[in-house]
Amino acid sequence: MAEFIHNAWYVGALSHEVAGDALFARRLLDLPILFYRTGAGTPVAMLDRCPHRFAYLSKGRRIGDAMECVYHGLRFGADGQCTRSPYQESPPANAVVRTFPLIERHRMLWIWMGDPPLADPAAIPDHSHMDVAAMRPLIWHVKFAGNWQLGNDNLMELTHLFWLHTGTIGGWKADAGATPGETYSARTDEQGRVQSRTFVPDIERPSVFHNGVPAGVPYDQWNDTEWVAPANMKFTMVARPAGQDGEDASYMVQSHCITPETATTSHYFSGFSRIFDLDGDEADDERFISFFRGIFEREDGPMMADIEAQMGTSDLMALNPVILPRDRGAILVRRLVTRLIAAENNGLQHAA
Amino acid sequence: MAEFIHNAWYVGALSHEVAGDALFARRLLDLPILFYRTGAGTPVAMLDRCPHRFAYLSKGRRIGDAMECVYHGLRFGADGQCTRSPYQESPPANAVVRTFPLIERHRMLWIWMGDPPLADPAAIPDHSHMDVAAMRPLIWHVKFAGNWQLGNDNLMELTHLFWLHTGTIGGWKADAGATPGETYSARTDEQGRVQSRTFVPDIERPSVFHNGVPAGVPYDQWNDTEWVAPANMKFTMVARPAGQDGEDASYMVQSHCITPETATTSHYFSGFSRIFDLDGDEADDERFISFFRGIFEREDGPMMADIEAQMGTSDLMALNPVILPRDRGAILVRRLVTRLIAAENNGLQHAA
Amino acid sequence: MAEFIHNAWYVGALSHEVAGDALFARRLLDLPILFYRTGAGTPVAMLDRCPHRFAYLSKGRRIGDAMECVYHGLRFGADGQCTRSPYQESPPANAVVRTFPLIERHRMLWIWMGDPPLADPAAIPDHSHMDVAAMRPLIWHVKFAGNWQLGNDNLMELTHLFWLHTGTIGGWKADAGATPGETYSARTDEQGRVQSRTFVPDIERPSVFHNGVPAGVPYDQWNDTEWVAPANMKFTMVARPAGQDGEDASYMVQSHCITPETATTSHYFSGFSRIFDLDGDEADDERFISFFRGIFEREDGPMMADIEAQMGTSDLMALNPVILPRDRGAILVRRLVTRLIAAENNGLQHAA
Repeated sequence: MAEFIHNAWYVGALSHEVAGDALFARRLLDLPILFYRTGAGTPVAMLDRCPHRFAYLSKGRRIGDAMECVYHGLRFGADGQCTRSPYQESPPANAVVRTFPLIERHRMLWIWMGDPPLADPAAIPDHSHMDVAAMRPLIWHVKFAGNWQLGNDNLMELTHLFWLHTGTIGGWKADAGATPGETYSARTDEQGRVQSRTFVPDIERPSVFHNGVPAGVPYDQWNDTEWVAPANMKFTMVARPAGQDGEDASYMVQSHCITPETATTSHYFSGFSRIFDLDGDEADDERFISFFRGIFEREDGPMMADIEAQMGTSDLMALNPVILPRDRGAILVRRLVTRLIAAENNGLQHAA
Repeated sequence: MAEFIHNAWYVGALSHEVAGDALFARRLLDLPILFYRTGAGTPVAMLDRCPHRFAYLSKGRRIGDAMECVYHGLRFGADGQCTRSPYQESPPANAVVRTFPLIERHRMLWIWMGDPPLADPAAIPDHSHMDVAAMRPLIWHVKFAGNWQLGNDNLMELTHLFWLHTGTIGGWKADAGATPGETYSARTDEQGRVQSRTFVPDIERPSVFHNGVPAGVPYDQWNDTEWVAPANMKFTMVARPAGQDGEDASYMVQSHCITPETATTSHYFSGFSRIFDLDGDEADDERFISFFRGIFEREDGPMMADIEAQMGTSDLMALNPVILPRDRGAILVRRLVTRLIAAENNGLQHAA
Repeated sequence: MAEFIHNAWYVGALSHEVAGDALFARRLLDLPILFYRTGAGTPVAMLDRCPHRFAYLSKGRRIGDAMECVYHGLRFGADGQCTRSPYQESPPANAVVRTFPLIERHRMLWIWMGDPPLADPAAIPDHSHMDVAAMRPLIWHVKFAGNWQLGNDNLMELTHLFWLHTGTIGGWKADAGATPGETYSARTDEQGRVQSRTFVPDIERPSVFHNGVPAGVPYDQWNDTEWVAPANMKFTMVARPAGQDGEDASYMVQSHCITPETATTSHYFSGFSRIFDLDGDEADDERFISFFRGIFEREDGPMMADIEAQMGTSDLMALNPVILPRDRGAILVRRLVTRLIAAENNGLQHAA
């Protein structure tokens, strides 16, 4: 059974990672992908493999918008068609490199690695908060050594903030998950998305985490998570002074998009926009990014590598895990993913 | 077919490795095991894996005698029962960590990783020489990159001392194994142990090895080996001035206990007590340990890694090895191990 | 299906690699092989594995022309027969180390790892140019991280000189493969060898490559390749001033012999003799070797490692590659190799 859902939009790269004339190579769904921009700035994605002797095209050179293979000089246009074989008048008919639908949206390049006719740009999940310049959007990339579904598990279950991240972003609640007045819900909506909401009244911000809430002031907090298959999550986090209506003290929207690299390693594209701390400079932006990257690299990433090693399978349910009330969102996601992979393996989507 | 015998006592750790409030993690029979001592000093062993999302419990923290998982805060007592889930009044019924029978004896912690009802402490092999303080017992741990049965093979065939260890502990006999007057026997006793005895008359001690025998004085030597399944060996080595009865010039009892780490890597717990050189200090103890560890790390360990690479299987007999007269003990052990693994795989011991 | 052809002569080592009393160990066709010379200088090759407990014999020591195992002292003559077991009067009958037919010819040691009765020295491919001292023969060894057939593919298709090696030996023709007047042919001859010829008129030598042709003088060039199974190639390269008959300005014969190390790594023995630049000293020889080794290590080797990673199989045709006119020689070789492996697997050669 495939480990991946193919008929889906994935973040293949961040817009700024594919820049100028440069070639950018990355493994996605266990295939090597080459990204670059044409002279007109249009991003393209193709299999990073010459169909002649399988050299990486990314080790070749650009000739205008085309790629020339370093091994024997075959040249391929941005559409994957061979435009020149030095050894004959017309290139062989099968000299074609697979290309992939690629849409640039929300500061990310979305790639479709399934059946091209099924690639509907309207199905790209909404992360338009990344387009709001006034909210100073920031975005970055890290990897982790675990199956991509561990990213879903991790991000759909946020009480781990209060245990795994006690020293950084989550240090403020010993009774996390069971605070008086705390509520949690998770459901699958009519579009097949999973929606969860956590409300925690009367909490304080952790001292090392500058989230826009004044230190020492108790506030009420809402965390809404929207999951779109296969592994795209949007967090909307709102905080207001405890027990009051009116202006948000803090408002922040986060993007968490995961793309399989291999069956056991994953890309994690993470970003956020906010309404606070907007008057910093680029050095402040870098500090924000370093802070969040560091948390992932030191806390979440090693945890997922451990879990990958312990599980030895991507089938969580086969291991009969203990299920906690707060796992509801993560379990809904697991079930949907299992169904989507089964459907794809059964060809149901292909028959559509 | 399983590579391991499960229904057996193994050394899981040395007593001094599990000390104070510290957590001690080690892989045994391809499972991650967490050791620690309760406040009362009782050592415990549990699967190093939270049953919720499979984090290593050893990365969590102790709360009294309980372990709290670092990922979501589930808490487990030393008996493996979940005592707290922050998210609900009573922890889920299946929130239980597997624990293992563990007995502290002879400066070692003996773990039983098979069916708990079969765990009879009386079956722990006798290494009581390690309890005789007057014999200044020393014990240490090393690993080797080979299947655990290679440890049996190596230790049940001692003529290799005269070839592999010519520069250290075995440098004294070019005609080893065939000295005039030398005798060797090996047999399986009524308890399923293998007993072997080597007698070598009129030999000298190797110059670099201080074994309690005066340099330059020929002596007679007895080496008795007692093997207890799966891989516990006790050597009793006696030397007397050549041809004389009476006082032992040297008397030494060694423990060699091997526990699989994985199918291809092993733990080797080694120790000894003796009647000579007893008036040293701790630095002398360390010198003794370093000397023996160094021999293993430079001579036996690399040899077993080579053999593991060459064999590519744990089934020695499938490779039609040349069998020498001195292999009798090792072959008896191989046969018993094969029978024990087959019996366990057939469930015969479970039916008992 | 086997990855290797066994009934064939392979270069196992270069003559100068097996020198004096030294032991030389190398993995070939996924078996560990020990080479050394007897006191009379005769080179021998045997399985580098004691038949008792599988220690590497190469870690033992020589006793005259015999090898003594470091583990338990078994001694084996150069013919593989056990000459001494310290523990008994006569060594066990099955104490025999496999030896391999080995012929020293053309500064190389040719090993036969198939059925010994089939080993006919007359079948060793002719590389007698390496015996012509007046042509100052040079020879060296490198490895690459790819299946051995990738070496055939690479060396049977020489237009890659003009793409992969543009900075070193091939920098002179942008229209390589399609120069006006250029001709190419490839065919299988009656001995089952593949013969190919490339003729390129009126070209200049690359500036960094001193091939015996004066700089700035256009010349005509013939490259003849003779392939002998499994992976032995001889290149004869001739150049004359463009459009003229008579004396060769340059004449060079190269040896390219590949031997599998494992299914995915290979040995590459490379050498050449020439009629130019003959008055240098040993430092000049070293410069020549370094130049050619460096090209392979920086350009061909990494390409073959990439291709190995991309293909994930040794069966090129299963991947439906694009085939170019210049691939004819390489494809003839692939077909012959497939047939030879199938024949060997079917035992046809054994029945002969």
